[in-house]
Amino acid sequence: MEMTEQRRADGSLRHLLTLEGLSRAELEALLERAQHHVRRLGEPAPRSNALEGVTVANMFTEPSTRTRVSFELAAKRLGAEVVNLEVQLSSRVKGESMLDTIFTLEALHVDVFVLRDAEAGVPAMVAAHVAPHVSVLSAGEAHLSHPTQGLLDALTVLQHKRRCDGLSIAIAGDIRHSRVARSACHAFQTLGVKDLRIVAPEALMPDPGEFNGCTRVTDIAQGIGGCDVVMMLRIQKERFANTTIPAGDDYFREFGLTPARLALAKPDAIVMHPQPMNRGVEIDGAIADGPRSVIRQQVTNGVAVRMAALEILAAPLAARRGR
Amino acid sequence: MEMTEQRRADGSLRHLLTLEGLSRAELEALLERAQHHVRRLGEPAPRSNALEGVTVANMFTEPSTRTRVSFELAAKRLGAEVVNLEVQLSSRVKGESMLDTIFTLEALHVDVFVLRDAEAGVPAMVAAHVAPHVSVLSAGEAHLSHPTQGLLDALTVLQHKRRCDGLSIAIAGDIRHSRVARSACHAFQTLGVKDLRIVAPEALMPDPGEFNGCTRVTDIAQGIGGCDVVMMLRIQKERFANTTIPAGDDYFREFGLTPARLALAKPDAIVMHPQPMNRGVEIDGAIADGPRSVIRQQVTNGVAVRMAALEILAAPLAARRGR
Amino acid sequence: MEMTEQRRADGSLRHLLTLEGLSRAELEALLERAQHHVRRLGEPAPRSNALEGVTVANMFTEPSTRTRVSFELAAKRLGAEVVNLEVQLSSRVKGESMLDTIFTLEALHVDVFVLRDAEAGVPAMVAAHVAPHVSVLSAGEAHLSHPTQGLLDALTVLQHKRRCDGLSIAIAGDIRHSRVARSACHAFQTLGVKDLRIVAPEALMPDPGEFNGCTRVTDIAQGIGGCDVVMMLRIQKERFANTTIPAGDDYFREFGLTPARLALAKPDAIVMHPQPMNRGVEIDGAIADGPRSVIRQQVTNGVAVRMAALEILAAPLAARRGR
Repeated sequence: MEMTEQRRADGSLRHLLTLEGLSRAELEALLERAQHHVRRLGEPAPRSNALEGVTVANMFTEPSTRTRVSFELAAKRLGAEVVNLEVQLSSRVKGESMLDTIFTLEALHVDVFVLRDAEAGVPAMVAAHVAPHVSVLSAGEAHLSHPTQGLLDALTVLQHKRRCDGLSIAIAGDIRHSRVARSACHAFQTLGVKDLRIVAPEALMPDPGEFNGCTRVTDIAQGIGGCDVVMMLRIQKERFANTTIPAGDDYFREFGLTPARLALAKPDAIVMHPQPMNRGVEIDGAIADGPRSVIRQQVTNGVAVRMAALEILAAPLAARRGR
Repeated sequence: MEMTEQRRADGSLRHLLTLEGLSRAELEALLERAQHHVRRLGEPAPRSNALEGVTVANMFTEPSTRTRVSFELAAKRLGAEVVNLEVQLSSRVKGESMLDTIFTLEALHVDVFVLRDAEAGVPAMVAAHVAPHVSVLSAGEAHLSHPTQGLLDALTVLQHKRRCDGLSIAIAGDIRHSRVARSACHAFQTLGVKDLRIVAPEALMPDPGEFNGCTRVTDIAQGIGGCDVVMMLRIQKERFANTTIPAGDDYFREFGLTPARLALAKPDAIVMHPQPMNRGVEIDGAIADGPRSVIRQQVTNGVAVRMAALEILAAPLAARRGR
Repeated sequence: MEMTEQRRADGSLRHLLTLEGLSRAELEALLERAQHHVRRLGEPAPRSNALEGVTVANMFTEPSTRTRVSFELAAKRLGAEVVNLEVQLSSRVKGESMLDTIFTLEALHVDVFVLRDAEAGVPAMVAAHVAPHVSVLSAGEAHLSHPTQGLLDALTVLQHKRRCDGLSIAIAGDIRHSRVARSACHAFQTLGVKDLRIVAPEALMPDPGEFNGCTRVTDIAQGIGGCDVVMMLRIQKERFANTTIPAGDDYFREFGLTPARLALAKPDAIVMHPQPMNRGVEIDGAIADGPRSVIRQQVTNGVAVRMAALEILAAPLAARRGR
């Protein structure tokens, strides 16, 4: 989709389907708002009534309990009314049938759709058809886009490194099939990262036209060397079958993040992972739980980022409703 | 069940299991209250605290995401506490076991049961056993009754035609298996519709003793001719197997609502459908999305009607609790 | 686990995983607080804002709709934010993976975990790993522990018998596999019951080292004789296969609670059952619904007890958050 489709006529953000095409100022506004909602572990959760009177539908066609709960809590903590739906695949076999479900929910006064779908193009199709006051927030679209994950990754880096300009960042693992990698790259590049490396075995590298501006590295040690940020991706076991990718222990030996490899990064490098993790496959468990891991902080930032995105998308609606 | 079982000793409505036997005044009171909760698309959803302190359990033994969400939002927008349960079929294999579940929920201070069940008699059985302060609201019972659907259909017609007296209404499709048709007929007849036609192939016509006062028509063109309201029903694909009913395209050719057939109705006729729709089977997609379709408005009216029903059934309870 | 693991350094209760090791004063404080939340059927449900700003996650790996709803309503009625999760078994195949889920939820600002799990040791493992401000409340652990059930059983007895000292109590049925029996015994013994009998066919008796201080009786008539309280347990049908336990009707004939057997208890004996019941297997339906049954009252007490437990565990958290 073209980026203008995410915006209203006045240029403000109406949908959030991808980070591609967002300006640096837009990203920074989202992240600044998100930082406002960050709380330390043990502090009371953030809470406001910014979305009071707004109804949010969480529609997850793929099971993803943790992401669903993150969006559910984000919306509830803004005072929104939330309904969870597990939409049957059958209802999207035909686009028309899926749209009828969307129109039904819209007629029930759902104002924001949070959509996760394994199929490319679904969020954009929904966004193209809903009424003008309705917003769509993608919670993950095929291998293409996961905008709030990209935002939370950027927020996490900024919290530790102050700024993105000048950083060296390595994203390592199954880049080819990763919406997390795509959205993170959009965020990092827009925020000024020049040295952005995608690190993967050849079979998990994306097609040539993708990830422009990133350096492609097939050797993990070389990829990590001198980095400020090391972001590991989940490697899904089904990728190993019938491929040249080494499986299990072999994968860990060739591409896993070990203490020895992490020592090649800068001394203050942080380690990130979008979860769920396969300890002993793409990452050593001791690193995941170690002092340089910011993995749990990513989760906390996730709620904050989702609250910010919901607030910003629904701002005109909330304004019209007198808040 | 006899109708008196729906009422308290003072004649007020305690349960809503069927529209059969409700007086015109009772229907009109429900519809007037519902109209109070109708909002245009994009306006804030209706909201009150009429059911604060009341607990509503949505128990759906059949999967029906959209109807469940409609009831869930109706109850939440009245300030009720809502719990959703997907009751396993096994718990109703024996009536006793199902009643134990009901008594358990009652002991958890559930005040209103919203029940959907594929089996005839379940809502009445529950209504006959719950404590005096508890109400039962049927969300669809076998092929027999779907009272809030009948109410929303009536409300939709009234919004467009002002009154029911004098209208010609055609309900077309699988009348035989349709609780929607049964409840709509009860509502329309009580509100004064004299020319009420049920239109279906012979195999989908109800048994002779049913739908008294309705005209039976097997030709769709004849059924629609001169009508003010055309209500199409979903035709379920499993009906086609081993029957004389024409399947798919053939059904559409013989019984589907096409522009040519709709042209036989009055020029200002409205088109209704309870959803989900099979476009190209019982209805042309262009009609469903066209200017004479009021299908989405039916959905909005659904929440309003469910709010009204909950309010009216729980009124004595809410009164005793000081609201 | 050792009991000290349930407590904070100051001795206050942080987790509730078992009733074993709780002092009489602690139990009485829990029960007194619970009694404060008991309402008669038809009265408004108890409600407070004691847990406002606290987030509770209900994680049930076994399906158990009724217990889940009881905990959900308890938390909501205290003003907490509640999320329900059905955790896939796969996420606990490895403890690490399960802990990652827990840490994720903790990072989402979940403050209290309500856990039901068929596997022994899971609640203690979670309790050992969560941050200091987080509490774990077991909603049933393998055959070992179900502390809120034990509390509600004790509360029910106290409501009818004023005190536990001096009572004769029989627990009859599948003692061997029953977490309900284990937690009830802990509660009753701590509260001063001396004559506590476990009644079961030999094959359903626990191992010798367990249930110390209880009298073991294999004859149901003898077990019930002269009792103040008769607590029947559910007998699960899968126990009958390949064992010496008589099945179905035979079980009822040999071990079921019949009017004749109940007549052997004291004239004012009460009858309890944790539900769900197999009428005609372990208990006569007429007794379950009869005047001496307090089974539904147990359910009402369940919400009250769960509210009390949540309040007491989260008290320091709520205090720090300014309530």
